[in-house]
Amino acid sequence: MDAEFEPFGDRLAAAVVEKQSVVCVGLDPRWEQLPEAWRDGVPAGDLVGQATRTARFCCEVVDAVASSAAVIKPQAAFFEMLGPPGMEALKTVIDHCHRRGLLVILDAKRGDIGSTAEGYARAYLGTHTPWQTDALTINPFLGDDTLRPFVDRAHASGSGLFVLVKTSNPGSGFLQDLVVDGKPVFERVAQCVHDLGSEQIGPRFGWTSIGAVVGATYPEQLAQLRQTMPRTWLLIPGYGAQGGSADDVAGAFDRRGLGAVVNSSRGIIFAYRQSASSHRDWQDAVAQAAETMRRALNAVRPIGS
Amino acid sequence: MDAEFEPFGDRLAAAVVEKQSVVCVGLDPRWEQLPEAWRDGVPAGDLVGQATRTARFCCEVVDAVASSAAVIKPQAAFFEMLGPPGMEALKTVIDHCHRRGLLVILDAKRGDIGSTAEGYARAYLGTHTPWQTDALTINPFLGDDTLRPFVDRAHASGSGLFVLVKTSNPGSGFLQDLVVDGKPVFERVAQCVHDLGSEQIGPRFGWTSIGAVVGATYPEQLAQLRQTMPRTWLLIPGYGAQGGSADDVAGAFDRRGLGAVVNSSRGIIFAYRQSASSHRDWQDAVAQAAETMRRALNAVRPIGS
Repeated sequence: MDAEFEPFGDRLAAAVVEKQSVVCVGLDPRWEQLPEAWRDGVPAGDLVGQATRTARFCCEVVDAVASSAAVIKPQAAFFEMLGPPGMEALKTVIDHCHRRGLLVILDAKRGDIGSTAEGYARAYLGTHTPWQTDALTINPFLGDDTLRPFVDRAHASGSGLFVLVKTSNPGSGFLQDLVVDGKPVFERVAQCVHDLGSEQIGPRFGWTSIGAVVGATYPEQLAQLRQTMPRTWLLIPGYGAQGGSADDVAGAFDRRGLGAVVNSSRGIIFAYRQSASSHRDWQDAVAQAAETMRRALNAVRPIGS
Repeated sequence: MDAEFEPFGDRLAAAVVEKQSVVCVGLDPRWEQLPEAWRDGVPAGDLVGQATRTARFCCEVVDAVASSAAVIKPQAAFFEMLGPPGMEALKTVIDHCHRRGLLVILDAKRGDIGSTAEGYARAYLGTHTPWQTDALTINPFLGDDTLRPFVDRAHASGSGLFVLVKTSNPGSGFLQDLVVDGKPVFERVAQCVHDLGSEQIGPRFGWTSIGAVVGATYPEQLAQLRQTMPRTWLLIPGYGAQGGSADDVAGAFDRRGLGAVVNSSRGIIFAYRQSASSHRDWQDAVAQAAETMRRALNAVRPIGS
C-alpha cells in the first residue's frame, strides 16, 4: 500500500497518539465575529478583502492550536458565504493545515445521488483532488446507495468520511429519533456506517475510515452508538458552546483512549471574547482555550498505547 | 412590497406562464462528458482552463434553452469538482442566467444546524448575497429546527427553497420510506414543508415559496404528495435519463398547469451524444432536446390561466 494511501482511520489514530489529543478545532470564521482589528479597513461587500483576512485569521488560529489539536474542521458554509473568493480562502486554509502537519475534516455535509455523489467525492476526498481534504462530513438522507460512491473513493484514496448519525441540535429528533420496528433511525444509519466501514479496517490501529457524527449533547445515545459502531471513529460536535462537557463524551473512547475526536468551534476560535485582560492578545486566548480543552478531555479518557 | 422581493413562488409561476413551459434544465457539466471540441487543448489538472471552458459551455447551453426552459438548475458538485476556479465558473453561469431573464435553482442540497444553516442561507438566498440564487435545494435530515433559518431568509428575500422529500434514486427508501405511526417519513417531511410554506402564500398565483423535491421515478408517491402539499411547488428530478416520463408527472399540476417544474440534466445538456448526423452541432441538439421536453410536458398538463 502506498504510504500516501494509509487509511484515514489509522492516520487519525496516529495523530491522536502523537499529539496526545482528541481535540478537533472547528473553523467557523463568521466575518462579523472576527476580532475588530482583523476587520478594520475592509468595507462591507468587499468579498475579496473579507476572504483574504478570513484566510489569514484561520491560518493564525491553526498556528495557535497546532500543538494542542489532533485535527482541524473548517465549516464550508462560512467560506461559501464569502462567494468565490471565500472558496479560495478555504483552499488556502486547507493547504496551511497540511503544511502544519494537521489532518483536515471538511464539514460540508454533502449528499446526493449516484453520479453526483461521485462528483463530490472526486472534488474533496484525497490528495488527487482539487481540495485535498483528509475527510468529509456527509448526509445519509438520500439513501444507503448514495453513500457507496463516497465510501469507495474514501477507501481507494486513504481518506475518510463522517456520516451524520445523531446531530447535536435540539431538533435532531425530528427524523433521527423516529422509531421503526423498535429501532430509532439513528441506529439504522449507525448499523449502515458500521457495515460500510468494516470493509476496510486500519491495519495499524484497528479503526475504520468511515466515521459518524454523534453530538455530545445526547450522552445516552452516544453510549448506545459506541456499542453499535465499535470500530467507527466518532466526530463529536456540541462540546463547549453547545453545552456538552468532557464527562458527556467520556464513554466514546476505547481502553487506549481512541475512537473519537471532539469538536469545539466558537469556544476556541472566538475565545478572545471570553477573556478579559488576562490574555495579551487573541491568539494567546485561542491557544490557551485549545490546550485547556485538550487537558479536560485527557482527564476523562484512558491514555497510552 | 419591493418588486425585487416578489415571492419566489409567484416569480416561478410567472415564468411558467410566460414561457408556457415547466422545463427545468439541469446543468451537470461533467468535464469528461463535454463535447470533445470543448476539451481540446486543456490538459488534465488545468483547473482554471477546465473551469473557464465549463462556464462557457454552460452559458451556451443556457442560450440554447432560453426560450424553452422556465428555470435553470446548476448542480453544485460539478463546479466544486473544479476547485476554487469551478466556483468562479458557477458564479459566472448564475449571472448569465439572470442576464437571460432565467430563474436559477442552485442544487446544492445544503443542510446544517442553526447558525450554520443561517450562513448557507446568507450565502445563497436572494439578490443581496454573493451567489444571488433564486432558490436552493436543502436537506431536512438534521431536523425541522434547521429549516427555519432557510425559510426565514427565503421569505424575507423573495427567494425559494426546495426541501428533499422523496428523491429519485433506487435507495431513497432507506430512510424516506420508513413508516412511523402509519405514516412514511417522506409524508412527515412533506407536512412540515407544507406548514412552513403556508406562512407566506404568493398573492398573485397562490403558491408558496418553500418547494419540495419529489422524484418522477415514484409516480404513486408523487400523487400522494401532491395532496399533502397542495400549494407547494414540486421540483421533479428523474425525468428522461433516469426513467421518468411525462405521464409519470402529469398528476403534479393543478388545473392551470402550475405546481411543478420537471428537471432533465444529462438528457438535455449532453443531447449531442444521442443525435446522429441530423443535428448540425451540439447546441442545436441541446435546443431541440429542451423544446421536445417542453412539448411533451405541455401535452400532459392543462395550459392557460
